[in-house]
Amino acid sequence: MPFERAKGIWPPVATPFRSDLSVDFDRYIAHCRKLLAEGAHGLAVLGTTSEANSLDLEERHELLEGLVGSGIAAEKLLPGTGATSIGDAVLLTRHATELGARGVLLLPPFYYKAVSDDGLFAFASEVIERVGDDRLQVYLYNFPQMSALAWSPALVARLITAFPDTVAGLKDSSGDVAYTERLLSEHQGFAVFPSSESLLLAALRKGAAGCISATANTHVAGIRRLYDGWRGPDADKLHEATSRIRQVVQNYPFIPAVKAILAEREGTPDWLHIRPPLEQLGAKAKADLIEALRKLDAI
Amino acid sequence: MPFERAKGIWPPVATPFRSDLSVDFDRYIAHCRKLLAEGAHGLAVLGTTSEANSLDLEERHELLEGLVGSGIAAEKLLPGTGATSIGDAVLLTRHATELGARGVLLLPPFYYKAVSDDGLFAFASEVIERVGDDRLQVYLYNFPQMSALAWSPALVARLITAFPDTVAGLKDSSGDVAYTERLLSEHQGFAVFPSSESLLLAALRKGAAGCISATANTHVAGIRRLYDGWRGPDADKLHEATSRIRQVVQNYPFIPAVKAILAEREGTPDWLHIRPPLEQLGAKAKADLIEALRKLDAI
Repeated sequence: MPFERAKGIWPPVATPFRSDLSVDFDRYIAHCRKLLAEGAHGLAVLGTTSEANSLDLEERHELLEGLVGSGIAAEKLLPGTGATSIGDAVLLTRHATELGARGVLLLPPFYYKAVSDDGLFAFASEVIERVGDDRLQVYLYNFPQMSALAWSPALVARLITAFPDTVAGLKDSSGDVAYTERLLSEHQGFAVFPSSESLLLAALRKGAAGCISATANTHVAGIRRLYDGWRGPDADKLHEATSRIRQVVQNYPFIPAVKAILAEREGTPDWLHIRPPLEQLGAKAKADLIEALRKLDAI
Repeated sequence: MPFERAKGIWPPVATPFRSDLSVDFDRYIAHCRKLLAEGAHGLAVLGTTSEANSLDLEERHELLEGLVGSGIAAEKLLPGTGATSIGDAVLLTRHATELGARGVLLLPPFYYKAVSDDGLFAFASEVIERVGDDRLQVYLYNFPQMSALAWSPALVARLITAFPDTVAGLKDSSGDVAYTERLLSEHQGFAVFPSSESLLLAALRKGAAGCISATANTHVAGIRRLYDGWRGPDADKLHEATSRIRQVVQNYPFIPAVKAILAEREGTPDWLHIRPPLEQLGAKAKADLIEALRKLDAI
């Protein structure tokens, strides 16, 4: 039996590295536990903010096993399992499903360009059919600015029709509100997650499931308050509070910005390590970011 | 001791699949042997035309081992070993180097966008230093239309300065003649390979090493004649003969077009199989392509 569809606030968990760029697993688990304690409904691990495509295939397997082994409930995990090849995507997706993950976030095969919807449909179908597990719940990961390819509304509809019990939702990192709203209006019960808390309130009012936002790594409690209170009298106030913080952070590249905030807050430069080709924020940018957050009493 | 730098015609070998999309290894070896018999100096296996990013990590290892095991000299192999993570790129690069490959073709880490030259320099440096093998010869693979990231001239210069005995050349799939010429003028002895035989004669006159062209999968003999005769009286005629064929094929997406030509020539539809998200040519396009080549007596 598959799980109920995910909803709520699922931070795309940043991955801490040591100075030699190996994964700092203890810090990782501590960060995961903290996010859950502060209000995250679950964890969208091994996504873009997690630098998943900077982890090798073996590390992606090990991290997921380590999380479950550490006692974090597998049903609170929504790992990214996308790859450019069907074979590796199947390997990662099957592994996550067998571990009991709530579902998987599936990127399109992001090497090729100018790929047709038919080609993407064939790719996703092959992955789903080869995994061949009733428990599998696929959340499509739409991030055309990064992956170059998109899950178009027509393609999403086709996948839902072909795999109604498996294609459960979509993370929309496009920032395209019209796209999110179209999916919500066309597919009752389809779990759509915008990637920003600034878009969360409007999206919840249209039927969104929650959000998967980079800044939930650093400010999950306020986003949770908005999620819990969106039908209440303080909804607009809660929206403004989280959006103010988001507006500051989104002036910087998200991955190093999130790491800079965590380093400042936990008082350790270890959080700053980032894998090439990505780079840390420069000293000036980091200082400006922290100062701007301090003014909002948000650090 | 590293090998001499590669030169000549190195087809980026197409990878044949069975109807269940598994690799047809016997057909693959036969195709490799035929290319070498018809004049290829070596084989740029596991590149874009090879659908390498549609192969899983294990298949990429197996294919390379299978080639060497089948008796094809490792020094005639220039495999693609790029990956989005340093870890997987190191794994593939080390494996190829230890098998005795002539060198490796290294894509930039193609998931991320808006990456700086500093970030790409750090990525390439980490791969080279972690492999840490004097035999390693890196050929940068520049294909911004597909990988989104480019090896800029400034970055190439920096990598050559940092690793003069390792960074041996570059495959330029950008089609940007000014870029190719700039690299050739700035770096004596740097082995630059344009990706089209249409650009080969002009590039050889500027000091290029040869070419790595998709259509060398199907028309290597003529390209080899051009390479051998480029200083002779028939150079322009040889150039025109190969370019006429190239101009026909490049009206179609290269990977399915190359496979359609091989299927027609070898009288088997098996060559048509292609892994999603890529698609075969439609029946009309295939018939038009074959007909156009027939008119040139080139099928």
